[in-house]
Amino acid sequence: MKRIKGMHTIAITTLVAMGALALTLACGGQGTGTGNVGDIAAARGLSEADIEAAVKTFVPTGQHDDYVLFASGGHSGQVLAIGVPSMRLLKVIAVFTPEPWQGYGYGAEEHVRLFEEGMIDGREILWGDTHHPALSETDADYDGEWLFINDKANPRVAVIDLRDFETKQIVVDPLMGSNHGGTFVTPNTEYIIEASQYAVPLDGSYQSLDDYAEEYRGAVTFFKFDRDAGRIDIDQTFSMELPPYWQDLADAGRGPSYGWAFINSFNTELATGGDPVFEAGTTANDMDYLHVINWQKAAEVATDPSKTVTIQGRTVIPMQVSIDEGLLFFVPEPKSPHGVDVTPDGTRLVISGKLDPHATVYSWAKIEQAIADANFSGTDVYGIPIIDFDAAMEAQVELGLGPLHTQFADNNTAFTSLFIETAVAKWSLETMEVIEKLPVHYNVGHLSAAEGDTKSPDGNYLVALNKWATDRFQPVGPLHPQNFQLIDVTGDNMQLIYDSPIGIGEPHYAQMIKADKLDPMIVYPQVGWDPGTMSPAEDPALPGEERIERRGNEVHVYQTAIRSHFTPEIIELNQGDNVVWHITNIEQAQETTHGFTIDKYNINLSLEPGESQTVRFVADKAGVFPFYCTEFCSALHLEMTGYMLVKP
Amino acid sequence: MKRIKGMHTIAITTLVAMGALALTLACGGQGTGTGNVGDIAAARGLSEADIEAAVKTFVPTGQHDDYVLFASGGHSGQVLAIGVPSMRLLKVIAVFTPEPWQGYGYGAEEHVRLFEEGMIDGREILWGDTHHPALSETDADYDGEWLFINDKANPRVAVIDLRDFETKQIVVDPLMGSNHGGTFVTPNTEYIIEASQYAVPLDGSYQSLDDYAEEYRGAVTFFKFDRDAGRIDIDQTFSMELPPYWQDLADAGRGPSYGWAFINSFNTELATGGDPVFEAGTTANDMDYLHVINWQKAAEVATDPSKTVTIQGRTVIPMQVSIDEGLLFFVPEPKSPHGVDVTPDGTRLVISGKLDPHATVYSWAKIEQAIADANFSGTDVYGIPIIDFDAAMEAQVELGLGPLHTQFADNNTAFTSLFIETAVAKWSLETMEVIEKLPVHYNVGHLSAAEGDTKSPDGNYLVALNKWATDRFQPVGPLHPQNFQLIDVTGDNMQLIYDSPIGIGEPHYAQMIKADKLDPMIVYPQVGWDPGTMSPAEDPALPGEERIERRGNEVHVYQTAIRSHFTPEIIELNQGDNVVWHITNIEQAQETTHGFTIDKYNINLSLEPGESQTVRFVADKAGVFPFYCTEFCSALHLEMTGYMLVKP
Repeated sequence: MKRIKGMHTIAITTLVAMGALALTLACGGQGTGTGNVGDIAAARGLSEADIEAAVKTFVPTGQHDDYVLFASGGHSGQVLAIGVPSMRLLKVIAVFTPEPWQGYGYGAEEHVRLFEEGMIDGREILWGDTHHPALSETDADYDGEWLFINDKANPRVAVIDLRDFETKQIVVDPLMGSNHGGTFVTPNTEYIIEASQYAVPLDGSYQSLDDYAEEYRGAVTFFKFDRDAGRIDIDQTFSMELPPYWQDLADAGRGPSYGWAFINSFNTELATGGDPVFEAGTTANDMDYLHVINWQKAAEVATDPSKTVTIQGRTVIPMQVSIDEGLLFFVPEPKSPHGVDVTPDGTRLVISGKLDPHATVYSWAKIEQAIADANFSGTDVYGIPIIDFDAAMEAQVELGLGPLHTQFADNNTAFTSLFIETAVAKWSLETMEVIEKLPVHYNVGHLSAAEGDTKSPDGNYLVALNKWATDRFQPVGPLHPQNFQLIDVTGDNMQLIYDSPIGIGEPHYAQMIKADKLDPMIVYPQVGWDPGTMSPAEDPALPGEERIERRGNEVHVYQTAIRSHFTPEIIELNQGDNVVWHITNIEQAQETTHGFTIDKYNINLSLEPGESQTVRFVADKAGVFPFYCTEFCSALHLEMTGYMLVKP
Repeated sequence: MKRIKGMHTIAITTLVAMGALALTLACGGQGTGTGNVGDIAAARGLSEADIEAAVKTFVPTGQHDDYVLFASGGHSGQVLAIGVPSMRLLKVIAVFTPEPWQGYGYGAEEHVRLFEEGMIDGREILWGDTHHPALSETDADYDGEWLFINDKANPRVAVIDLRDFETKQIVVDPLMGSNHGGTFVTPNTEYIIEASQYAVPLDGSYQSLDDYAEEYRGAVTFFKFDRDAGRIDIDQTFSMELPPYWQDLADAGRGPSYGWAFINSFNTELATGGDPVFEAGTTANDMDYLHVINWQKAAEVATDPSKTVTIQGRTVIPMQVSIDEGLLFFVPEPKSPHGVDVTPDGTRLVISGKLDPHATVYSWAKIEQAIADANFSGTDVYGIPIIDFDAAMEAQVELGLGPLHTQFADNNTAFTSLFIETAVAKWSLETMEVIEKLPVHYNVGHLSAAEGDTKSPDGNYLVALNKWATDRFQPVGPLHPQNFQLIDVTGDNMQLIYDSPIGIGEPHYAQMIKADKLDPMIVYPQVGWDPGTMSPAEDPALPGEERIERRGNEVHVYQTAIRSHFTPEIIELNQGDNVVWHITNIEQAQETTHGFTIDKYNINLSLEPGESQTVRFVADKAGVFPFYCTEFCSALHLEMTGYMLVKP
């Protein structure tokens, strides 16, 4: 570009005001001889708004993102950890689906146990339809310690340890046919909430749809989380029998509504498909029922055997007990509601009816008062008391078409996704009016705000989880990625600043945590560590003690891995040997991961520094089987190998 | 910021030179009232170089990337499609590892067949260690039609159709124990080259390591690709017996070297581990052997049964035949070489010895002449003629520590990765001198340049595939992502412009193609389409013909899916029924994908518009099983469900 001398002079006067940066900008960057921003932007067809967006989202080499977005991986069965504002995918955390890079489900005994826990009706389930990740909370704030996620298709809940970003537990809910209203945590992670979706007989039996009203049921399970053990404690877990409406999303109260949980429902019509078809039969009513549940009191009731029943080995509070004990109340909600979201201060609930253009705001004080006064307009067919709509409702705000989910910047500023309108509505809980709408691309489902499900959202970043990408990205075949759009909500106007294709799974929901709340290990604490128990391994291979040991019909291999060598590297076996292979990565330097595979055995481990794993298999075929390190670990990585020789 | 009036005036004079953009930049963007770039950058601590990098890599909403980088997913077993310059992950293409989002390997008959093809020794192999993706070529240029990828751990090759970005074929190579030198294609995709790595007996038998030199062998397989069928044709595929050196990377000649293939090797010491250990035993020699193979002539020889043998059902050219027919020659190469890369014009080969600080440049003309003159310095222990190093070598360029792989901007500018030095060296094949080195973060393996493996590289973008990320990103536990770094190589100096964490797998290599060369389908051509054959399905469910049909002990369900309904939606079965479930997505609008899962059955399908799939299972348990659409398809997506009722 043409140099304009004068600009130097002027710009220099601005140094104090705006820093040397502005100088080089004003001068088109001749300072560096690396071209200039204006010309580059012009050449690439970037508008000024584009440049702003670029500068707002770019994280330079060596610097870190401010937030981590934990997004469900949808039916990939995994969880995605994404940096914000760069929207870079930091890690796919393997949860319900085996993933060989992480050595997850490819031979390690730790995962053999995990997937056994996750079996249903004796069948291995090797995927999940993950929906709603929930970060553990302390005093209604994310504490960065644990992450929970549900599997809708095969009603299960998983526990992820944020010390090493690995899945530690998968728990089946045998009562449900599917779930959707999970996972949501209570403000101190006392319980992980999971509500069923499509009703089934709770005992797993066959029942005719003619007997739907009598034999089919919904349920909500409160999984007790033992923080010290880092595991769900099934013995202290309880479920509540619910009507065979299709329970949907849930949320936990905080502040004044602490101790209570809220679950939406649809199909209060008790439609069973066929005629009318489900999408008509389940949407006939103008009102469905918000479930208002006193989980604190329910937890006490659950400890009284005279008030519970055991179904499929789980403690269940029958509906009549919930009615008698005042654990469960209904509030009418329009129409086919989807999201129920508690305001940061816990004083109000926002409910979006996907077939109703409003966000309906309920006052917790009014609901609490109605319950205290037993001010009920009647009961549903199952005898559950119904609080009158007007006795609970504070306001209805007309947002637009297909409102789904609400997040908050603070107690008075809310953002609601509009699926059909494919936009985000920013509105005020003070004026109960829409402030602004921002179109997104396309078909937004959930929203996720920075620290959005805590008592103190940060109000800077909002992510729209859009279901369709259509024309946004280079086509990659008939199956398109999703499109996460990052929105800057700090200014008077919402600004769309980044389009992020999600080319793995269809994430449903995400939670965004301040990065500095996370404090993961970068190596395991000691050589011979068992990530399954997060404690020293019972029988690890250790340096100096490498050996091959025959015990009856078992051959135990004790092998260590270090750049760039396996010890021992020649393993001689006899065909039919039952092999127990103990292997430890004896390094302690950051990132010195070694992989381990035995060719053609469907075995692959990822051994982080210090990690010990055990693999059991039968050497069923005679032959020569190379094994090698599957992580590029050094210049002699390809030489980090050995032979397993199986004699006929 | 403080406004400086004067700047407006000055900046206006620059309008013609740098466009209105520069005005707003110079003025800090007051023009729009949306804040200004200088202040935002300063607040975020961005340097001017950072802003340039941001502007060079940012792709605004609605615009597309210029290139697609197809990266191997390493031991995730998949392939990653990444947009360049934004480095956004557009899609994880499922290849060797089941992936439920794509419905890959979760019940669809198409994938049952695919994974059966991929079985080894009767064992299901549900992952792969993918290394080197190869785009199909026409006249030595990427044509954007097909993508191939190898599995090192379980010697296999996969074929991906770039019409729908789906894997269509997995072929096992029974001769090998592992492979590494694959996949590489010949200039018209006549063959897909795959070379073994760790030597084993080719017949799959057990042999003592004492007999290594006699009984163990390497091999190279030339898989014949039938472009019309879109499949590898095993009948026209042939392999060549090679010495039990550990063959490494390969490349195919083009232009003057068309018809020839080149494969590196190490462990010409024939080390068998133990004492000395592999990393010492395999690196003792100063020189190893570049394999120079006349694949065109070999293809003719392979058609003569008197000159081939059959091993494990595959046609193999014995070493002695290769010697007699002049198919195989050696050229010494220093030291533990890794990458062999043919220059765009095919006149030279660049070889990097990872334990040698040089790039060694060989002249094809000199090699060809030496072969024509039978100018050999002798043979190796197996009788394979060796061309004298000096008779083939054109120059050695001292690059630095741990040179691995070379890519090109043109015939005279090369980029070589330096693993140990963790840098990229830019050097000239004209002057044979290093022009510049750029540090990368950290431990770079392969490089990938825009159109880098064609006869005409674009010379604008270069990606460093770094094995370690260490401090680059927010920690996500002991297993770190990889770090792909995007480098702008258009200027006099290489400029690092983006850090891209790869949080899934350890990609080994990537190829970068101009996006406009890709022309994928965005919907399938007609309702009732079988992606497995890319033709109309044999027995699809079709609209108006939905039904449940008993045929002997089989129950055939013919079901269609459309927003937001399955027809039929109630499926009554008897316990023990053999179910054949035909399902078709009868939509034809872009992105109207429907998923299909039957709860607790480990079944999930992804049905793109028009796609038809068939699932077979036994209804082995009585009960009530919801099925539903796993892709958020409409406002009534949750109502797109049904019940499978299994009577005892």
